[in-house]
Formats: sequence, structure tokens, C-alpha cells
Amino acid sequence: METGLPVSVPSTALFTDQYELTMLQAALHAGTAERRSVFEVFTRRLPEGRRYGVVAGTGRVLDAVENFRFDDQMLQFLGETDVVDEPTLEWLADYRFRGDILGYPEGEVYFPGSPLLRVEGTFAECVLLETVILSILNHDSAVAAAASRMAVAAGGRPLIEMGARRTHELGAVAASRSAYVGGFDTTSDLAAGFRYGIPTVGTSAHAFTLLHDTERDAFRAQVDSLGSGTTLLVDTYDVAEAVRTAVEVAGPELGAVRIDSGDLLLVAHRVRQQLDELGATRTRIVVTSDLDEYAIASLAAAPVDAYGVGTQLVTGSGHPTASMVYKLVARADSDDPAAPLRPVAKRSLGGKTSLGGAKWAARPLDADGVAEAEIVGSGPVPEELAAHQLQVPLVENGTVVGREPLEAARERHRASLARLPMSAMQLSRGEPVLPVEHR
Amino acid sequence: METGLPVSVPSTALFTDQYELTMLQAALHAGTAERRSVFEVFTRRLPEGRRYGVVAGTGRVLDAVENFRFDDQMLQFLGETDVVDEPTLEWLADYRFRGDILGYPEGEVYFPGSPLLRVEGTFAECVLLETVILSILNHDSAVAAAASRMAVAAGGRPLIEMGARRTHELGAVAASRSAYVGGFDTTSDLAAGFRYGIPTVGTSAHAFTLLHDTERDAFRAQVDSLGSGTTLLVDTYDVAEAVRTAVEVAGPELGAVRIDSGDLLLVAHRVRQQLDELGATRTRIVVTSDLDEYAIASLAAAPVDAYGVGTQLVTGSGHPTASMVYKLVARADSDDPAAPLRPVAKRSLGGKTSLGGAKWAARPLDADGVAEAEIVGSGPVPEELAAHQLQVPLVENGTVVGREPLEAARERHRASLARLPMSAMQLSRGEPVLPVEHR
Repeated sequence: METGLPVSVPSTALFTDQYELTMLQAALHAGTAERRSVFEVFTRRLPEGRRYGVVAGTGRVLDAVENFRFDDQMLQFLGETDVVDEPTLEWLADYRFRGDILGYPEGEVYFPGSPLLRVEGTFAECVLLETVILSILNHDSAVAAAASRMAVAAGGRPLIEMGARRTHELGAVAASRSAYVGGFDTTSDLAAGFRYGIPTVGTSAHAFTLLHDTERDAFRAQVDSLGSGTTLLVDTYDVAEAVRTAVEVAGPELGAVRIDSGDLLLVAHRVRQQLDELGATRTRIVVTSDLDEYAIASLAAAPVDAYGVGTQLVTGSGHPTASMVYKLVARADSDDPAAPLRPVAKRSLGGKTSLGGAKWAARPLDADGVAEAEIVGSGPVPEELAAHQLQVPLVENGTVVGREPLEAARERHRASLARLPMSAMQLSRGEPVLPVEHR
Repeated sequence: METGLPVSVPSTALFTDQYELTMLQAALHAGTAERRSVFEVFTRRLPEGRRYGVVAGTGRVLDAVENFRFDDQMLQFLGETDVVDEPTLEWLADYRFRGDILGYPEGEVYFPGSPLLRVEGTFAECVLLETVILSILNHDSAVAAAASRMAVAAGGRPLIEMGARRTHELGAVAASRSAYVGGFDTTSDLAAGFRYGIPTVGTSAHAFTLLHDTERDAFRAQVDSLGSGTTLLVDTYDVAEAVRTAVEVAGPELGAVRIDSGDLLLVAHRVRQQLDELGATRTRIVVTSDLDEYAIASLAAAPVDAYGVGTQLVTGSGHPTASMVYKLVARADSDDPAAPLRPVAKRSLGGKTSLGGAKWAARPLDADGVAEAEIVGSGPVPEELAAHQLQVPLVENGTVVGREPLEAARERHRASLARLPMSAMQLSRGEPVLPVEHR
């Protein structure tokens, strides 16, 4: 369900670093702005020890490209602050992206050097999109990668995204979306439900218990209003007493209890035993205290039915941003649209060199359907790799052609992960699970 | 200058965790929703080794509280998805916050246990604001704290915020605002200039050099269009050759050169010597490669004139979120508005206990004007501390009274930091620089 736009904005055109506009101005002046160009998004490395990355935010990139228009108020700002000159302002007033974008579809895994996105058009129209594309992909992919590891650790148990309070209020909505792509099931964030149709959940906090004169009063109030299928929070005072009261108030059909502090492994075992003794054998246990993928994994043998994850999810579990860059890799020598593209690349010392030329990527599978390598090349795609290509058309002549439901990205991630070698599922530090081979 | 709202949203009411609405519903049903309540925002700890925190986002909190209204589309969503029942939807339709908020003003430093914000009103009206308040304060304060440490490390040299590409596109705008509060001078993010009037800067990327047939062509194009006062990027190919070309093209009045890779200490010294030999003695050197506060400090003796900081700034230099919480600390026993407030607090084991009761805070100074301690108490403020109180009125009876220009927050941070003991300025790990004493 997509009911509206409370988290959208009228235009994305100012989510832009000033240098993109000054480069545009200088190129217009020099007569080089219309040279056909190819920019690519890629990363030189994964966060240390991570075995794969997860592409997320592609759907938001498509929205951002479509909404990248300069309105009068923005042009007035750029003029009054002397960011660019009058001819450039006139050019910007008519701007819309008319080029092509292809790339890894959302949910796909990636590795260092994977050509994640290829943006092709005139230099002028492509250079403007650098910041907004990177903002979205770097943020969303960082969260999706953490989500994917947590989903692996949870081994099929449901995961609740509840990190809104730990990150920017709109970053939180995007984080919730990315978590869903990465394998989370629900979110506490109502804006994410409203904007993206992600199922929302939530019942009560400690404040609700403290508001009432006794814990029993609080549980009674909650069950009266929300039904016995609700989740009661049992760690405001004494957990054992709270569990007893909870079952007395709600009956054995109590939906779940939530534990938000303490030694979760120990407490979950005790609470399970107590619930079973009280006949509440189907009452579930939800845990929600400062979890990350390692804490989730450590609870694998505990009687836990669902995990709620906040801080570590929305901050990428130690890696709050991917390190994707947007680089010019090829361009024409003149503004003739038919001029051939020449590979270009930074060549100075210092580790920031990159490979020139527009690149394709393919991920062939072995006889068991397991991915063997990430093969990256420029020039024509070898025939035997054609069926294994990773990039898909996203924008053609300025028109978005790659939009898809969020479910499709979530399903793709699951399938893509399942085709990786088993070692991808290890949480321990390691090398990227597929070698990247350059052809 | 505040020219418009490209990064604002029509309503903040869904930046809310679902449990706030279900608690509201249950409390309305139980007749406890109108009990007078006090919620407080505080943190139990600073990021490990940090010596102070920085309050940021207060101005955005005030906007968010004002715009916290449920429109028809939102109410329809909440009804169709059965988040809450009909009586609750009716209550939400009329919602606006009519209570009081006081707190530490923006830019002020804080410590573990500092009562940063106090929200007072009925339980119902206060409980709804938890998530949006925490989202803003946790994100913005994390960035401001990193910015402040970087400003200390820079020792007065200008700092440019250029991290938009490394974080959510709207998180980036808030990060730019927080960086400005924390001591940064300019931003590359045009949306931050547009929305908050922060001075914007930027000239060119490697793509601009690569677009042209030679580096000389690129420099010529840039200088022709942007003037010789511009900043030329000199590390696309060979730095020494680029510097020579840059001065040949722009003359000795060249504004600046930018170095974005390599051993910055070494390269900056070489470039300074070369520029001086070429007569470009007033040409400045800007460095911009993966800096954090430690890298900035390590360049203190280098001939560097400005630092551009991206990733580490917008991700809080290892701590992308503050750990502030929003807790019910006092409430009435009935819905009589005159009923006395009773302190309440979570009491279970597990380290998440907190101190009940509405709290004040004061920071007395010694004879030299240096802060001695952060004193936190409940009940009446001792006379000798009255002049040193930290909290100020922000919202009174639902009306915002604490709005101020961003400059005021920036200036307050500078002054507040200057009153801390000198050890606050150390980047090394240590304890919070002021003890928090409870009265």
C-alpha cells in the first residue's frame, strides 16, 4: 500500500554538493558539458571482515532522479548566493535527466569492484546526480547489509525493526525499508508502514506500566483495550512476578511477553519455563535489548520467538555507511553524440585509482547452482556469461523502467544470498565470499 | 536566510513508534490518559572515552512538535491497518501538544544524567512525542559531538562539511546543521544552504579534470568560468605537475589547491614549498581525504589552510547515534490537573534503572569562570545555584517560545566549551570532564 507522501519532498535537486553545479557552469562555458559520459557507482572495499554487501535504495534512487528538478525558489537561491551564473541557472531551469541508468537490481548482493550502477548521458546531466545517488545507496545499503546478517543469525525467527529513535527521522523510514529488503519482517515505525506498506507492530513501553498504580492495573488496561493476544512488557519491576500477573490477567492465551533488559539468555529460559508451568505454552517471548547479529546468534538456543532490533540495525552494525563512489569512467572527445567513448580514470598515487571504461558484470553458477565468481569486464559480454549478467535497465532515455514492488527486492535478496557459497552465512570476519575477476 | 522548505515535511506525526498509539488507546480506555505526567530525555553514558556531549537538534524538535498533527490520510491509514480503534482516531484528529517543554538550549554541552529535555502535560499528549524527539536529538547530537571534537582539533582553521554522499539525503541536511552548531564553517550541501542559510562551498571533482583532454584544459576551463580565486583539484594525475600547471593557468593569485589523496602531511609540505617557489604564497591548501579528528590533529603542524570532512563527521566519528532515552519520571495518581506528581522509575535488574522525579540542572563556575560540576536535583533549586541553571523554556502551553537563530546555538556551543576544564579539549579517551552530582 502506498497511501501518500509524508516523507517525500517536492524536489531532490538540492541534495547536491555545490561542486556539481560549479563543474556544470565551467563545462558549459568551456563547451565540454555535452560530451557523452559514463559514470559508475562502485565500492573499493566492503566493511572490514564482511563477506558480501547488499544493494538497497535503488527504488528511492529512481524516485530521486525523477524528482530532480529545480523550481523557481531553488533557482532564486542559487542566483542570490552566487553559486552559479545566469546561463547556468537557465540551463538548470530546464533540467531533467534524459539519459540511461542500468545497474544491479535492489536486494542483489555485491562485492568490491561490482559495477553497481551505470549512469550514461551528457556530462552535464550525469554529474548533477552524484550526491543524491550516493546518499541513498550508501545509507540504504549499509542498513540492508546489517539487516541481512541479522536475518541470517535469526535463522528464520521474525525480526522487528525498531530503530527509529536512534537515527534521523527520515533516515529511519529509509532504514526500515532497507531492513525489510534485508530480511526483517515488521517495523515499529508508522511512517514506514504509511509510506512503504511494511507491516507495523508495537504495544507498550515501561512508561505505560509506570503510569498505572500497579503493574496489574497496567496489564489489565492493556488487555482490556488490545485483547489477550497483545504483548505485555514484563521487566519494569520483577520479571517473575510480572509474568505471573500477565498470565493471571490475560489468561493462557496471552499473545507474548517482551523482555527489554537483563541477561536475555537466562531470563528467556526462566520465563519460558514459568509460562509453560502456568499453562501459557503458546505465549511467545520477544526480546529487544541492544541486539546485534552476534547477540541474536548467541540466543539461537534460547526459547526466543522474535527479536526487536534498533540501534545496531539503523547504524549498520558498526558500519553506518557503505563506501560507494560515483566516478567518471568514460567520455567522448567532443560533443558529437556519435563520438566514441574513451575510458578515463584518476591515476595519481594514494590508493584512490580506479578502472576506466563502462563495465558489465556477471555471476555464473556451478552445477549445484552456487555462484562461482563475480566477473567484471568492459567491451562485449562473452556469450557464455550473457545469461548471468547482473545489471538491468533502470532508466531509459530519462524514463524510469526499473520500478518494482518492495517485495520483489526482498525476495531477490533472499534468492541471491541462497546462491552464495555457504561461508557467506558466517558472521565471523572473512574475505568477500566471491572473488571479483576482471576480464 | 530561510528561504523555504524543500527538506521539511507536511506533518511529523507518523515519525512515531506504533506502541505510542497503542499505549494511548489503552490509557484512554482505562481512564488514565489524562494523568499529568513528566517525561525526561537523558543519556546514561557518553560514547566510550568521550569527555562531553553536545545538544543539537533542539530547533528541529520545536518544528517537529509544532507540526505533529494527524491529517485525514494518516488517520485513514491508522484505521485501515487497525493500529488503533475509532475513539483513539477521534482523539488523534484533534491532537496538538498543549503542554510545556523545557531543556538545555541547543549547543550546550551535557554529561551522563543531564536532564536534557523535560516534557510535561497529560500522559496522552506527551507519550506521542517520544520517537520524533529522540530521533532528532540522538542523530543531531551525535554529529554535533563529532563536529565539536574536529573543531577543537582544527584549532581555528576552517572546516568544511562535505558528508552528504555518506548518509541519508535528509539526514545529511540535519548533519550539516549540527556540524555548524558544533563549529564547522561551511558546507558542500546546497540543501543545507537553502534550508538553514549555512554558507556553501565547492568547485570541482576529479570528473571535471577527466572530462577534458588535458589537465591544463580543465584548469583553464575552471579558471575562465569561476575566476582565479577558485580552488583547483591537483591530485588527478601527478600533483607536482598539476600545481605547476595550476599556477601557470591561474597566476599566483590562484585561490587554493585541493588535495584529496595520498600522505596529506607529506604532500601538503611539498605543495606549500612548490607554491611558494612559484610565487603563489597566498594560495591556500585544502585537504579532504577521509579525515577525522585525529587526522586533523595530526596535520596541525602541516601547511594546511582548511579541512573538508565527510564520512566521519556525518557518522559521528564512530558513534553515529547518541544514546538518549525518553522516560516517564513523574505522574499524577488521577486525572485531576491539580493532583500532585509522584516520582516513578523502572526498578528491575539489568542496568536500565533510572532516577524518578522531574529534575533541574545547574553548572556553577569557579572564580576563574571554569565549570566545576553538573549538579542535578529534584525539588526546589538551591538559591546559590539559581543563576547557574541550564534548562530554559522551549514550549509553554503548546506554544514554541524557545526558537532562536542557528548562529545563537553555534555561539553558545563555543562559549559553553570554553567554560569547561582544559581537559575537555583532549581527543584521547577519558572520563566525562565534569562530575554529575545528584542533590
